[in-house]
Amino acid sequence: MITAAVLGASGYAGGELIRFLDGHPSMELIYLGAHSKAGQTLGEVHPHLGGADRTLGSLSSERASAADVVFLALPHGASAAPAMELVATGTKVVDLGSDFRLDTPARYLAAYAKPHPFPDQLGTWAYGIPELFRSTIEGASNVAAPGCYPTAALLGIVPLVAGGLVDPSDIIVDAMSGVSGAGRGVAEALQFGAVDESVKAYKVLEHRHQPEIERGIDAAGGDPCRVLFTPHLVPMQRGILSTAHLQTRPGVHRADLEDAIDGAYASSTFVRRINRSPETRWVVGSNNALVSVHLDQRSGRTIVISAIDNLVKGAAGQAVQCANVMFGLDEEAGLPMTGWMP
Amino acid sequence: MITAAVLGASGYAGGELIRFLDGHPSMELIYLGAHSKAGQTLGEVHPHLGGADRTLGSLSSERASAADVVFLALPHGASAAPAMELVATGTKVVDLGSDFRLDTPARYLAAYAKPHPFPDQLGTWAYGIPELFRSTIEGASNVAAPGCYPTAALLGIVPLVAGGLVDPSDIIVDAMSGVSGAGRGVAEALQFGAVDESVKAYKVLEHRHQPEIERGIDAAGGDPCRVLFTPHLVPMQRGILSTAHLQTRPGVHRADLEDAIDGAYASSTFVRRINRSPETRWVVGSNNALVSVHLDQRSGRTIVISAIDNLVKGAAGQAVQCANVMFGLDEEAGLPMTGWMP
Amino acid sequence: MITAAVLGASGYAGGELIRFLDGHPSMELIYLGAHSKAGQTLGEVHPHLGGADRTLGSLSSERASAADVVFLALPHGASAAPAMELVATGTKVVDLGSDFRLDTPARYLAAYAKPHPFPDQLGTWAYGIPELFRSTIEGASNVAAPGCYPTAALLGIVPLVAGGLVDPSDIIVDAMSGVSGAGRGVAEALQFGAVDESVKAYKVLEHRHQPEIERGIDAAGGDPCRVLFTPHLVPMQRGILSTAHLQTRPGVHRADLEDAIDGAYASSTFVRRINRSPETRWVVGSNNALVSVHLDQRSGRTIVISAIDNLVKGAAGQAVQCANVMFGLDEEAGLPMTGWMP
Amino acid sequence: MITAAVLGASGYAGGELIRFLDGHPSMELIYLGAHSKAGQTLGEVHPHLGGADRTLGSLSSERASAADVVFLALPHGASAAPAMELVATGTKVVDLGSDFRLDTPARYLAAYAKPHPFPDQLGTWAYGIPELFRSTIEGASNVAAPGCYPTAALLGIVPLVAGGLVDPSDIIVDAMSGVSGAGRGVAEALQFGAVDESVKAYKVLEHRHQPEIERGIDAAGGDPCRVLFTPHLVPMQRGILSTAHLQTRPGVHRADLEDAIDGAYASSTFVRRINRSPETRWVVGSNNALVSVHLDQRSGRTIVISAIDNLVKGAAGQAVQCANVMFGLDEEAGLPMTGWMP
Repeated sequence: MITAAVLGASGYAGGELIRFLDGHPSMELIYLGAHSKAGQTLGEVHPHLGGADRTLGSLSSERASAADVVFLALPHGASAAPAMELVATGTKVVDLGSDFRLDTPARYLAAYAKPHPFPDQLGTWAYGIPELFRSTIEGASNVAAPGCYPTAALLGIVPLVAGGLVDPSDIIVDAMSGVSGAGRGVAEALQFGAVDESVKAYKVLEHRHQPEIERGIDAAGGDPCRVLFTPHLVPMQRGILSTAHLQTRPGVHRADLEDAIDGAYASSTFVRRINRSPETRWVVGSNNALVSVHLDQRSGRTIVISAIDNLVKGAAGQAVQCANVMFGLDEEAGLPMTGWMP
Repeated sequence: MITAAVLGASGYAGGELIRFLDGHPSMELIYLGAHSKAGQTLGEVHPHLGGADRTLGSLSSERASAADVVFLALPHGASAAPAMELVATGTKVVDLGSDFRLDTPARYLAAYAKPHPFPDQLGTWAYGIPELFRSTIEGASNVAAPGCYPTAALLGIVPLVAGGLVDPSDIIVDAMSGVSGAGRGVAEALQFGAVDESVKAYKVLEHRHQPEIERGIDAAGGDPCRVLFTPHLVPMQRGILSTAHLQTRPGVHRADLEDAIDGAYASSTFVRRINRSPETRWVVGSNNALVSVHLDQRSGRTIVISAIDNLVKGAAGQAVQCANVMFGLDEEAGLPMTGWMP
Repeated sequence: MITAAVLGASGYAGGELIRFLDGHPSMELIYLGAHSKAGQTLGEVHPHLGGADRTLGSLSSERASAADVVFLALPHGASAAPAMELVATGTKVVDLGSDFRLDTPARYLAAYAKPHPFPDQLGTWAYGIPELFRSTIEGASNVAAPGCYPTAALLGIVPLVAGGLVDPSDIIVDAMSGVSGAGRGVAEALQFGAVDESVKAYKVLEHRHQPEIERGIDAAGGDPCRVLFTPHLVPMQRGILSTAHLQTRPGVHRADLEDAIDGAYASSTFVRRINRSPETRWVVGSNNALVSVHLDQRSGRTIVISAIDNLVKGAAGQAVQCANVMFGLDEEAGLPMTGWMP
Repeated sequence: MITAAVLGASGYAGGELIRFLDGHPSMELIYLGAHSKAGQTLGEVHPHLGGADRTLGSLSSERASAADVVFLALPHGASAAPAMELVATGTKVVDLGSDFRLDTPARYLAAYAKPHPFPDQLGTWAYGIPELFRSTIEGASNVAAPGCYPTAALLGIVPLVAGGLVDPSDIIVDAMSGVSGAGRGVAEALQFGAVDESVKAYKVLEHRHQPEIERGIDAAGGDPCRVLFTPHLVPMQRGILSTAHLQTRPGVHRADLEDAIDGAYASSTFVRRINRSPETRWVVGSNNALVSVHLDQRSGRTIVISAIDNLVKGAAGQAVQCANVMFGLDEEAGLPMTGWMP
């Protein structure tokens, strides 16, 4: 058995990591670390997981380093230091945070308006979408699991750009997320009274998943891309829908678009193109992604729509999937291939 | 007192019409007609309206024609015949349906794939957004109240196109609606189990509000526009958010965009630009619309976001507002200028 | 015009008070005070109220005392001191908090486990449900507006106890509330992620509305009552449903129960018995209450079900209604008599 | 491998049966039958299950009888005929419907106001709550899986009655259910617009789960019970909370109540007593049940609160659990022991 630890076990992604790793046939969870919830039992923090007998420890990278692989599910900026400590001990790391996702110091500086504490690391961590970048993950010791919005958007866009079917320089992405995408922290803007029965765009022109989406598209090769990304908050717990608008290259037919996506995921268990526009409830709870593609003859625009569960394919599920690839296990091991409805 | 009738009184828009007209200082509701709910009391059909003593009659245009103005809140295609009967009697008509919104037979044919039953009427009905087309409504006997999505989108887009600040030929609108936008009819796709905790795009490339949005932009003058419109269903009762992406003309600054919107609504009670991105909960229950505008220097794109209550400013409220303009009353008469939260 | 002030203007009840008082034909709102939101504009704090031009002041009872009547919408325990300052200046006070609702020091001590700071006041404030205790409110300078759960429960129970139709010593009340009942404060238990798609009982055996319900029933006369009250949190913004179980006296028929309720509210605008079991959506947004009564022949139990909007009839609406009674105005002045659906 | 079939595969319970049986280590699903959805693929009917390759057949008991066990997930009244056909072939049957749950023709007649078509069957089917009636299920060929409300209520009440700690003749149960409890059929009362943001009691004094709850308590022995049961509809997809009020026998302490429940479930994987009042989100998605018990010294009442997922422990999960017991498999086989949050 491969041993695993989770730092950040008390959050939503942490809870999902525990759920998947507890059911994993080849991994054993040996350490759970948390910040303010350290000392509490799993039953107190995640009553749905049923386990009253395990106690959360501290966010100790030393204690976590006893594991073969450590999953970091920490707030932005909190991963870098423990990640480097773990790397120094030779422990494999899958970071669910954003600290190591961008590929260059310049892109990081543009996104975060301050230099990265370990700029040499940028570009050395594999960017963890196995369906798109499997080969770099296979040999990796350190993987940056992508953000939820980028996962949804890239699964639809990258095959079209990689196939030369659309212009990467003019991409518009409007995406909608359930509230769990904001994490389990307590905030006025996340109160039921502020979220229920309302929808809004937020962080217009300044969401940090925009450079991450661009980094993912650029990794597909071709000319540098430019993405205009607008996230929206929707009154539901889980799920992301990404609606992307792309300028189609001349002479491209709908069948070309469909073939590009079908081809990209021909050997994939989790990602699939469908002919209907996907609904998030069809993927919630599973590690699946559904994609549909539409060509508007009038405007020449391609619309590609993709749906995932932000906490599974967009976070904990994909992180475990990356670990499966890193260790040469079955890519599906421990991961849910069906969701639930309603 | 001006006398009014509502045909289609049992639906959601019908209920809101009754709410506003019952509280209207210069209008008196004298007839309520419904289809399958004819014979039931108002208390049975709309328990929130409190009135157990009024009974719904049939969809008789003859009985409705006793009123000075008739509001038609009927399903698509059901307005044309009673509307023409009422017009023949000289009764003023505000049609909340889509039958008379488009301006040319060609646009109607393209949208509905069949000829209009009264093609001569197209273009003769005023298109009822008072803030944008007040002068044509003032002299009108017949007004086509706009759809909910077009109202939201046009309030943001038209001032920018009219001011020459953006290119009308490349407009992308992603919009999100609460479920009441689909009306009160019973359908599997509108069951709680099918809608709650999920989001989807629907009628991709084929929603009939797309030609209506184009009709509204073209009415603002300038080159013919082209709009790519994608509606999304969000798990909430009310509210529409429209996020529109436009190509900004060279040399235009954010202040120009803001000034265009501020200027357009300087004398408006209901429509207002704000510096924050609007949330639908800020307008639900009122006839208000909130608009924000954002300029992305990198891509040259303008994003204009607008929020309305689809049943008020997007339907019944705007219809009453149009009637106020038609009769020379205070434009705000009978209409809610504050909503409720949470 | 009667002048009014609101202390605690930034909360949910405060927002509703402003909405009603701004539309009140005989009252004028001259001061708004808040705690942490002092200095912000109304548009920032309550964007749905549309008013960007008023600024919230501090919680100054001195400044508020310039008004004829002050509405206190403050957290529990925060009313007593400013209330006494206002009383000393001769200003009329309607307290939406719980500080002056109980009628005896003993009951207060039992409920709150500490003595009341102004024990002589207990029993001197009118308990503000006009439909049940109108005569004491008419002459009052100080009114304690009841809690949301007690309002819902008492409107159903009191006429049955007062009529001698049920045994007051064995009453079981299960009630369900929307989340706004917990106020606008920020708490982990009120996050969307903790509330949406779940239901729970809370404060089992220890909710402080239990003694308040008992105080209200005892005020109806007869033997001392005993109530077992269990509140439940339901994933919706507004609305309370109270399902009360009472032991019916021998020989009582369903018609007796119905007559008692009909008689109690014969002259009431807002409270009404219906033959269907009420739904909270039928009263949300209005100051209305709906009551149904059911007699189980097998067990001899009476079930009385009542529905209100917790922020209107259960808080701000009832407070304005009390003020209307205090000043001899129309009891309905400024209050919504219809809600909205959906 | 034990072969299984599902008749009624297109509903919510049918979907959950497929989810559990597809992942079952010792059962193989060989036939899926449906009514109006026959001929459609699994991917069309249950997109979340991911399987596009299986097609639903008709509701043929002949075809289903090729399986070792058939799960019937049909509307009320539709089970009796196919069940008897399957019984005649020697196929084991687990019926998720209500047709065989009641134990006597008299109780059936009282509940349904018409005689049972196969009255001799009543009382011969095991009543399928393994934690309470395991021994009768172990030897059974035919099991009636209980209703969702009865499962929730009985798990809390039966140990207290069986232990002689409470009076069975005076039991009041108020329960709250998510909307999926009403099944997947299309109805006006189940539209999003009718359910969202509202709560109601329904079928007051006439819900057919009342006699079923009584049948379950009576099976625990002792004097005949009498239950007053009121169900409530809550705006969420899944979950049932049962709040039951019982008259405690003299001299009983809280520890006695707790011990009775702990003892009843000492060897159970799925049912557990906790010290906090349970929330439905803690069990949704799993086959778990959580119970808390509270003793009110003042009134002598015991409150027992229990939470389950109505589609899992209240339907499909418990049905599979029963089949596991019938075939001597691990009781947990194929069943989820953790849920998901949020």
